[in-house]
Amino acid sequence: MHRIDNFNAGPAALPLPVLEQIQREITDYNYTGMSVFELSHRSDTYESIQAKTEARLRELLSIPDGYRVLFLQGGASLQFAMIPMNFLGRDQTAAYVLTGVWSEKAVKEAQQFGAVRCDEQAKAGGYRTIPAHLDVGLLEGAAYAHITSNNTIYGTQWSSFPKVNVPLIADMSSDILSRPIPVQDFSLIYAGAQKNLGPAGLTVVIVREELLAKANQHVPTMLDYNVHAKNNSMYNTPPTFSVYVMGLVLEWIAEQGGVTAIERQNAAKAASIYSVIDEHPEFYVGHAEVAARSAMNLTFRLRDEALEKKFLAEAKAKVFVGVKGHRSVGGCRVSLYNAVPAAAAHRFAEFMQAFARQHQ
Amino acid sequence: MHRIDNFNAGPAALPLPVLEQIQREITDYNYTGMSVFELSHRSDTYESIQAKTEARLRELLSIPDGYRVLFLQGGASLQFAMIPMNFLGRDQTAAYVLTGVWSEKAVKEAQQFGAVRCDEQAKAGGYRTIPAHLDVGLLEGAAYAHITSNNTIYGTQWSSFPKVNVPLIADMSSDILSRPIPVQDFSLIYAGAQKNLGPAGLTVVIVREELLAKANQHVPTMLDYNVHAKNNSMYNTPPTFSVYVMGLVLEWIAEQGGVTAIERQNAAKAASIYSVIDEHPEFYVGHAEVAARSAMNLTFRLRDEALEKKFLAEAKAKVFVGVKGHRSVGGCRVSLYNAVPAAAAHRFAEFMQAFARQHQ
Repeated sequence: MHRIDNFNAGPAALPLPVLEQIQREITDYNYTGMSVFELSHRSDTYESIQAKTEARLRELLSIPDGYRVLFLQGGASLQFAMIPMNFLGRDQTAAYVLTGVWSEKAVKEAQQFGAVRCDEQAKAGGYRTIPAHLDVGLLEGAAYAHITSNNTIYGTQWSSFPKVNVPLIADMSSDILSRPIPVQDFSLIYAGAQKNLGPAGLTVVIVREELLAKANQHVPTMLDYNVHAKNNSMYNTPPTFSVYVMGLVLEWIAEQGGVTAIERQNAAKAASIYSVIDEHPEFYVGHAEVAARSAMNLTFRLRDEALEKKFLAEAKAKVFVGVKGHRSVGGCRVSLYNAVPAAAAHRFAEFMQAFARQHQ
Repeated sequence: MHRIDNFNAGPAALPLPVLEQIQREITDYNYTGMSVFELSHRSDTYESIQAKTEARLRELLSIPDGYRVLFLQGGASLQFAMIPMNFLGRDQTAAYVLTGVWSEKAVKEAQQFGAVRCDEQAKAGGYRTIPAHLDVGLLEGAAYAHITSNNTIYGTQWSSFPKVNVPLIADMSSDILSRPIPVQDFSLIYAGAQKNLGPAGLTVVIVREELLAKANQHVPTMLDYNVHAKNNSMYNTPPTFSVYVMGLVLEWIAEQGGVTAIERQNAAKAASIYSVIDEHPEFYVGHAEVAARSAMNLTFRLRDEALEKKFLAEAKAKVFVGVKGHRSVGGCRVSLYNAVPAAAAHRFAEFMQAFARQHQ
């Protein structure tokens, strides 16, 4: 079997044992005589898959009582619209902290439904930072505050979360399950699955019941969080196979020792590459300020533009996949999600070392 | 390998060769060193998977020029809202032909966005029929007309489609690709994939460019058909693995001889069971009138309620899966989608014969 060092930003690497389990079960899941694709979503077998997936997520993230877990579709991009549709009134204001492209997109949707006030500190500096303190007055009378916990394109990440006196909502698409999080400080957490959780096409929402109780009426059925909560994510057919794969990924995380162990592994993986950048400041330049660095998406440039092209070409030739930066910002980006093995990160760090030594 | 006779109404049976190909390719797709789950949706490899899937669909359904094919999420249920959001103005009326539960749900969403006029002929008769002629005046000044081509719960199906002078929109979730269709007579066709196309969590939309040009402005981004059309279904991450699986299903249909051959197979499968019902009118009673019978979902009862319970229990014991009718109507239902082998239908027909003979 041929497997590659996959640094894709999402969809991204999955643990090999997960793929191998899918392979074993694909024509006959658990003696049912069919694949998970073919199970009715109303069958006991599928209901048990979904229940186990939810229970494992609750356990890994220590989700307290009073929160619902929903399995939805449409990615974070659909959440950008669902959140204001459900939780922002025409005459209300929502507070958004801009830390990158995805938070800007979230703002654009919210503006269709109500007023929006933004913290633009990070934007003003070219998205190299995470604000140490939110703008004074940002939260005043806000229906909710919205943050993006990790910024895939710019490679910045909140190391701790702001304490706010309004419902806090977070897009955690690109770092959920990469570390422990204080779920109790959030009213709603959402994440597209295709980075740390599983397949593209599944979106996980963790939402506090108190927030659900305050949701707007007259929202189209499929965009109404309360409909999904009341129907246990089965108002219509959920993306059953993706929920199953996510369950396998969560089992794998549990076997690694849970999110505390995963956080340690992720920190070590990221350090192996950031240390090369820091050792060669005349050669590599990181995009994010050190305090705002992401452990998931590591963004940097080479000081010499011609050498950067050569670097990307050599990386590709050595079959490191996904190293080119997002088309909107250029440069280089290495994504080190949970399932990227430490060995892959180390191989890339060695390549960076060797390349710097060779061309300095 | 243990495989069962799967008559689920959806998610439903997939062709075994498709599952076996997934099994072979799951850890290393086409020498990429990764699974399709792990491919970037911006990679050439994934773009080629999606392009091939679209091309194959266009070929199998003879989709003319001037139509876009979109790969979306959220199932038919999200389409129920997207259609009026995009194509119905506040001061406009849409015409809906009620032929079952799903068309009723579509109406409920449309009523949030404009006026709705309904053809209730089939409803008045307990959903046993398909209207031979639409209500006079139904289409007058309508922004569009909406039909459901096959009704999973009641087991009725349009054998030919109405000619109308307004844009015709059809929910074909439960019979797309089961037979040739005159795509040129429709402005929009949509289908959740989990019956004849592939995995739950993928929705296919075939839409005429002329209709797109008339769409409403100020629709939330992810609910705007034009956004998806302009971005080639890549405005955000599509459900990549599901598109891949659908591509494999389409290849399998092509290998069967395309939709004309599939239609013949489906007709023969359905006839094997309907003929048992017709031979035992004192024992079995079909729900749909003969002219409106579905080749996809065959609904019937036993005249004797106690025997019906016994019938369902015996069917279950003989591992025929999915024979119980939808919880909203009861009775029995056998779903014979494309991937259900003729042998499975025949085994069930023989079981019905034997059961009738034994208990008459």
